[in-house]
Amino acid sequence: MLASSVLATLVLASHQSTPLKHAAVRDAILRQGLTDMAAYTMLHDLCTNVGHRLSGSENAPKAIDWTIKQLNEIGADRVRELPCIVPRWVRGDREIVEMVADGETIRLSAAALGFSQGTSEAGLTAEVVEVKSIAQLKELGSAVKGKIVFFNRPFEQTLRTTFEMYGKAGDQRFAGPGEASKLGAVGALVRSMTLRADDEPHTGTTNWGEATPIPAVALSLNAADRLSARLKEDSVKVRMSLSCRQYPSVPSASVIGEIRGTEKPDDIIVVGGHLDSWDLGQGAHDDGAGITQALDVLRIFKKLNLKPKRTIRFVAFQNEENGFAGASTYAQHVKGLKERAYGAIESDSGGFMPRGFGAAVTDIQKIQPWLAYLKTFGITELTVGSGAADIGPLADQGCSLFGLRPDDARYFDVHHSRNDTIESVNPREVQFGAMAMAMLAWLISEEGVPE
Amino acid sequence: MLASSVLATLVLASHQSTPLKHAAVRDAILRQGLTDMAAYTMLHDLCTNVGHRLSGSENAPKAIDWTIKQLNEIGADRVRELPCIVPRWVRGDREIVEMVADGETIRLSAAALGFSQGTSEAGLTAEVVEVKSIAQLKELGSAVKGKIVFFNRPFEQTLRTTFEMYGKAGDQRFAGPGEASKLGAVGALVRSMTLRADDEPHTGTTNWGEATPIPAVALSLNAADRLSARLKEDSVKVRMSLSCRQYPSVPSASVIGEIRGTEKPDDIIVVGGHLDSWDLGQGAHDDGAGITQALDVLRIFKKLNLKPKRTIRFVAFQNEENGFAGASTYAQHVKGLKERAYGAIESDSGGFMPRGFGAAVTDIQKIQPWLAYLKTFGITELTVGSGAADIGPLADQGCSLFGLRPDDARYFDVHHSRNDTIESVNPREVQFGAMAMAMLAWLISEEGVPE
Repeated sequence: MLASSVLATLVLASHQSTPLKHAAVRDAILRQGLTDMAAYTMLHDLCTNVGHRLSGSENAPKAIDWTIKQLNEIGADRVRELPCIVPRWVRGDREIVEMVADGETIRLSAAALGFSQGTSEAGLTAEVVEVKSIAQLKELGSAVKGKIVFFNRPFEQTLRTTFEMYGKAGDQRFAGPGEASKLGAVGALVRSMTLRADDEPHTGTTNWGEATPIPAVALSLNAADRLSARLKEDSVKVRMSLSCRQYPSVPSASVIGEIRGTEKPDDIIVVGGHLDSWDLGQGAHDDGAGITQALDVLRIFKKLNLKPKRTIRFVAFQNEENGFAGASTYAQHVKGLKERAYGAIESDSGGFMPRGFGAAVTDIQKIQPWLAYLKTFGITELTVGSGAADIGPLADQGCSLFGLRPDDARYFDVHHSRNDTIESVNPREVQFGAMAMAMLAWLISEEGVPE
Repeated sequence: MLASSVLATLVLASHQSTPLKHAAVRDAILRQGLTDMAAYTMLHDLCTNVGHRLSGSENAPKAIDWTIKQLNEIGADRVRELPCIVPRWVRGDREIVEMVADGETIRLSAAALGFSQGTSEAGLTAEVVEVKSIAQLKELGSAVKGKIVFFNRPFEQTLRTTFEMYGKAGDQRFAGPGEASKLGAVGALVRSMTLRADDEPHTGTTNWGEATPIPAVALSLNAADRLSARLKEDSVKVRMSLSCRQYPSVPSASVIGEIRGTEKPDDIIVVGGHLDSWDLGQGAHDDGAGITQALDVLRIFKKLNLKPKRTIRFVAFQNEENGFAGASTYAQHVKGLKERAYGAIESDSGGFMPRGFGAAVTDIQKIQPWLAYLKTFGITELTVGSGAADIGPLADQGCSLFGLRPDDARYFDVHHSRNDTIESVNPREVQFGAMAMAMLAWLISEEGVPE
C-alpha cells in the first residue's frame, strides 16, 4: 500500500471510534514495518559497519555518529548528543589462560571480565580452588590466599526462564572476583553465564567495590568443564597472562532525537536501548537490536505520517554495560527541564520474537485492553515489573516504565560473547519487536497511561 | 528432585482439589523435562545417527528401527508397526540446472521437487518463461509449449505469519508444474518457499494429477533472483539434467507405542508427528522435532509415574511428505477396533518455542481454563483450527484435534532444505514443545474434552 493510501485510511479512521482508529494504526504499522524491515536493515548496518562499541573504545564515537546519521535520515526533530563521562577499559590482544597439570599445559578459552586487572606478559601462575558459591568461598576464608578462585556454579537449567538462571548465577561474576580478592586470592576464573556448551567465553562487568582488582576472566563452558574434571584428578595450576588495562575516564555521549507531540509536547515518551556493547562479537542482540528497534519506532511514525499527541523521544543510552553514565545523566538532565517524564519503553533483552511487555505502572489491570492491538506483534502478556535498566532512574519522576520481553530461550547463547553477531538475528524476530514498541508508543501517546 | 519425591508430591496431590493436582503435575513436568532435555537429546541422535529419511528410502527402515528402540527404552506398552505402502522416488546424485544466456553458462542452485521426472544425462535445454501465478500461466496458454516455465512469485513478506505466506505461494509448487505440463511445457522451475535469500533450494512434493510428469525443480532464492534479473535483459535458456526417478511403491510402516489408561483405556489420545522427512538436511524441524517431542511425552509420563485415566498413544506417522499413507492407514485401522479416537495432539510446525495450540473441538471456550497450566510451557493461546495433517482423518471419528503452534518466524528458513539440521534447533525451544504436549495430554486424559 502506498503511504498516501495509508494516510487516507488514517484520516478516515480519525472520524471513527477510538478502537477502530487504533486498529487502523496497528494494521499500518504491520504493513510498513514488514515492507521496509528497517529495524533489521539498520541492525545489519550497525553490526557490519560499526561493529562492537564498548564505552570509551575507538568504536564508541563511530556508533554515536552512526546513530545521529540515522536520526537525521529519519527526519527526527532536535537530534542531539547528551554528554557523559565513561570508563575506558581496554582488553588488548593478549589473553592467555592455560592449565598446567602433571607436566601438561592446556589452553582454556577465556575472556577477561570488564574492569579485570591485567598481568605482566609472563603472567601469574597459581593453584586453583574451585567453589560453587560466594558462601563456599567465605567458608574457605584465608585458605584461598595466593590462589586462583574458580567460580563454577552452572546455570540452573530447570528454571522457567534463562533470565532467572542469570539472576541466580550472576553474583559469581558481578561480585565473586572482588570477594576472592578480599581474601587474598591472586586471580579469578568464572564459568560463563550461559547454557551453551561451546568454546566461547561470555564476558561482562565485575565490580570491585572496596576490593583490590585482580586478574579475572570468564571461561567458556567447555573450558570450565575441562578444568573442573581435571581438578577432580590432579592439583592444577593456572597461568593467566592478560593485557587488559584500565585507563582514565573519557568523555562520551548518549544520542537523542524525537517527534514532537501535537497536543502535549511536554509529555515525553522515551523509546530506547543502549548504544554501547561488549567488545566481543558485534553487540547484535545486546543491544544493537534495542537501538535499531527504537530508531524504527520513529521511522515508522514518520513514514506513516502519524502525529502523536505526546512527544516520542528516541534515546540511545551510553555506557549501560559498565557504568550507567548515560542513564544517570539523562535522568538528571530531564529533571531540570519543564517537560514531564511520562512514559518509557526499553528494549534490552535481545532481538527475539516479542512475547510481552513488563510494566511498572499504577494499575496493570487498566492497560490490559491494549493487548487487543499488541497481539498482532506477538505480545500476549502485560505483566508487572519492567525489567528495564536504562529507563529505571526515571521511575522517581513518576514515569511509567515498559520493558520489551522477547522470547528468552536463545539470549544467553549469545550474550556478551563472540556469538552475538548479526548472523544470530532473525530479520522478522527483531522487526516484530520494533513494531510492538511502535504500537505501544502510539497507545501511550494517544490514550495516556491510566492512573 | 528425585523421582520418589515427585511421586510423593503427586500422591499427596491426589487428595487435593483438581487444580492443585494439575499444578503439581505441571511443576513436575517442567522439572523432569528440563532436567533430562530428552526431546532434544533424542532429536540430536535421530538427526546425526539416522539422518534424513524420506519414505521408501534406505534410511526409512533405520528410522523405524530407531523409533521402536526408543519406545522400548521408554517402557511403552504394545510397541508395534502399522504397515503401509509408500512411493519410492529417488533424487540420485545428478542435479544440474544452469542458465545459458549470451554465450555464458551459469549454474543455478536447485533441487528436484518430489515426483519430478528425471532427464537423460545430456538433459533438456529450453527457453524460459517467467510467470508470477498459475493464472498468468493459463493466460499464456500454448505460448509455453516446448518451454520451461519459471514460477517466481515470492512470499508475501507483509503477512502476519510465515504459514500464511506458504499458503499463498504454495500453489506454484503443488500445482504449477502439472499445469505447465498440461500446456506443453517441457520443464518447470519454482522459486523456493522461503524468505531466506541464500543458495539453498527448498524441495517438496509437486502433484501431477492427470498431467504428464516433467522435470521440475525448486530454485534457491539467490538463483531465482539471478535468473529473473537476467530474463529482464536477455532471452535465457536453461539446461536441466536430473537423475531423479520414480520406482515402484514399497512396503513401509508407521510406529506405535502407548501407556494404557487406568480408567478408560479404550479412549485413545494420540500424540505424534511424522517419521519421514525430505531428503535434504536432517529433517530436524520437519518433523524430527514432532517425533521426539511425542516420544518425550511418553517418557515424561513414565519417569514421573503418571498414570493417565485414558490411553496415551504415540504414533510416528509414515509418509506425510509424499502420500499420507501413514495417516490414512492409521485412521482406517482404528475404525475397525472397539477403541475410541478420543483426542489427538500433533506437532508438525517446527521445534521452536511454543506459543499456542490450534484446536478442533466442540467448544473452544470451554478449554480456555487449561491455559492456566499450559502457560508455563509458553502456550498463551488456544485457538480454533488444529492445522494438523496426520491426525486430520481422525476428525470423522469424532476425535478432538490439537496442533502445536510454535513460533513461526524461522520455520521456512529451514523447511525442506539442507538448512534443516540439528544445528538449527535450540535445545530449550524443542523441549518446551514436548512439555506443552505432555501437559495437554494429561489435561485431556484427566479432565476429558468438554462437549
